[in-house]
Amino acid sequence: MARRVVSVALAERSYEVVVAPGLEGLGEAVAHATGARRVALVTDDVVAPLWAVQAEASLAEAGIASTRLTLPAGEEHKHLQTWATLVDGLLASGVDRRTPVVALGGGVVGDLAGFAAASALRGLPMVQVPTTLLAMVDSSVGGKTGFNHARGKNLVGAFHQPRLVWAALETLATLPARERGAGLGEVVKTALIADAALLARLEVLAPALAAGEPDALGEVVARCVAIKAEVVAEDEREGGRRAILNAGHTAGHALEAALGYGTLLHGEAVALGLIAELSWARDEGLLEEADLPERVTRLVGALGLPVVAPAADASALGAALEVDKKSYGNRLTLPITVAAGRTRLVSLARARLPELVASWTA
Amino acid sequence: MARRVVSVALAERSYEVVVAPGLEGLGEAVAHATGARRVALVTDDVVAPLWAVQAEASLAEAGIASTRLTLPAGEEHKHLQTWATLVDGLLASGVDRRTPVVALGGGVVGDLAGFAAASALRGLPMVQVPTTLLAMVDSSVGGKTGFNHARGKNLVGAFHQPRLVWAALETLATLPARERGAGLGEVVKTALIADAALLARLEVLAPALAAGEPDALGEVVARCVAIKAEVVAEDEREGGRRAILNAGHTAGHALEAALGYGTLLHGEAVALGLIAELSWARDEGLLEEADLPERVTRLVGALGLPVVAPAADASALGAALEVDKKSYGNRLTLPITVAAGRTRLVSLARARLPELVASWTA
Repeated sequence: MARRVVSVALAERSYEVVVAPGLEGLGEAVAHATGARRVALVTDDVVAPLWAVQAEASLAEAGIASTRLTLPAGEEHKHLQTWATLVDGLLASGVDRRTPVVALGGGVVGDLAGFAAASALRGLPMVQVPTTLLAMVDSSVGGKTGFNHARGKNLVGAFHQPRLVWAALETLATLPARERGAGLGEVVKTALIADAALLARLEVLAPALAAGEPDALGEVVARCVAIKAEVVAEDEREGGRRAILNAGHTAGHALEAALGYGTLLHGEAVALGLIAELSWARDEGLLEEADLPERVTRLVGALGLPVVAPAADASALGAALEVDKKSYGNRLTLPITVAAGRTRLVSLARARLPELVASWTA
Repeated sequence: MARRVVSVALAERSYEVVVAPGLEGLGEAVAHATGARRVALVTDDVVAPLWAVQAEASLAEAGIASTRLTLPAGEEHKHLQTWATLVDGLLASGVDRRTPVVALGGGVVGDLAGFAAASALRGLPMVQVPTTLLAMVDSSVGGKTGFNHARGKNLVGAFHQPRLVWAALETLATLPARERGAGLGEVVKTALIADAALLARLEVLAPALAAGEPDALGEVVARCVAIKAEVVAEDEREGGRRAILNAGHTAGHALEAALGYGTLLHGEAVALGLIAELSWARDEGLLEEADLPERVTRLVGALGLPVVAPAADASALGAALEVDKKSYGNRLTLPITVAAGRTRLVSLARARLPELVASWTA
């Protein structure tokens, strides 16, 4: 299987996303992208025993020394204290402003390491090496970093673009099936919002994707990254079009918060969020393709993801919407896909939020 | 006294620095620069009773509501916990991505509020309203934000440019004389590195400046801001020329760290740092104007600042240099003024640091 390379065009902050069979070649790519002779390798205690030695070997082959910093694994550690400890660790390891931080892991590792890189010495170069499907197609590309706050997910952080993203498909082999499946939730979202052809292709590939077939995953990761790269290049800091990437996330985030983080995986919540938001949009008369909710539900099910949300408390859902980062003043702006591959931003008065929640919990 | 306006040219991040007699007009300027109808006003418990009501009145006159958040005053609070509490306060107050953070206070307030604005919801608009001379001529302009770390000053933070800086000269009237004097340390630095005419002018104005005469202060603040604006516009993220603004700061920061923060005010440390670095530069044969150390020492003294550093421990000074943000790999890069208004970057092998420290402690 050959490497696929996608460019993220952000002027002087442009970079490449390499979708590669494995970690071989990572070191050379880091050397090329950053010129570094040493890096801080940030990973977690689940990924470290599986892949850290291989990543370090590839770096060493390219003449790059690494200091390893290991975080506790899991979304429940994506908070201020883990970030602060990581910043301490980076400073203790003697980084200077040219020392790249290489994040080897899923979205939690990438987001925490990314924000630590953004803020230690006011900014170190960043390399993302995502080892989950979710991180490959979504969180590792586009520069969003940060941690969760008692008031909501990802409420503290920075936009900090990486110099390189290296997605090694072989690392998906050690990913639990449920997590791989959850990643497919973001894949469905990406196709749905912007690429009708990819949505149709996912319907064909669904059995292969559900089985974790590397060729199918490689094809889909590269296409999702290309879509995300294009959207991010158009609107780096989410002033406009980038907001379409949040499809499924308004209901999805609220669901995660209301059920307590960890009940659903993020990708599962996004898939359920897509279904909820599409159903609401049909009720509102916004859809141009009336069967879209059923079509997405079918695809989500074929990919092995849950299609029925666990019962959630309406007032907890409402409270989560109140702190949504996409709300301004008295309005919440919600990306709604109106036809396969076509999404628009719908602005909703805050007074209508209880109604929105009611439609989700019906 | 009329307002003086200096533009900081940073493409889509450009903004104006207004040097005004007082806080009157602040609200209108905030409305113009940000379009906001409400702001979070961050101040400290020393500045709040002196100026917060006036600032809020000016904002209210322009139709802007403010929520006040008050920090404990003092450099010793410029750390992670104060920042985290401030971020909590901003989120609790219901900010959205368009809610500006207005920092009313000295450098500590501006740096903490600036980094909180940079990271809450991944970035809120920022307005700096400096109330100390040091903050007016230096820290409020240029976007550097952050907090101190056990390993050194300002080691954690972000570059986050304000939308507006409003320097109200009347606020200097309530500044303790020693703090106003310390601010003159950064004024001397700014003139020395880039503007021989301003250096000569400072020699003329020294008695008026030492006495806190508003006209003299206004003239000097506007000229220092113009110099800083030009340097920052050329090199926003300190990849090159901006480093000249760190003149005096290598020795100055080391001195502050070695003596324990709080012994010297930052501006005093910078003035002493300039003298130490110039003396070393002369010993190295780098100076083109041999009398520069004496000239600067005379001016610093005439401004009422200390010209002899308290005795500091050499090993503590050396340790502080080891974590200097300006050190890369085996070299430390040090801006050295070789003639009035002309500064170059001198790269020093790490092995020579003990020698450098020895020259300062001689």
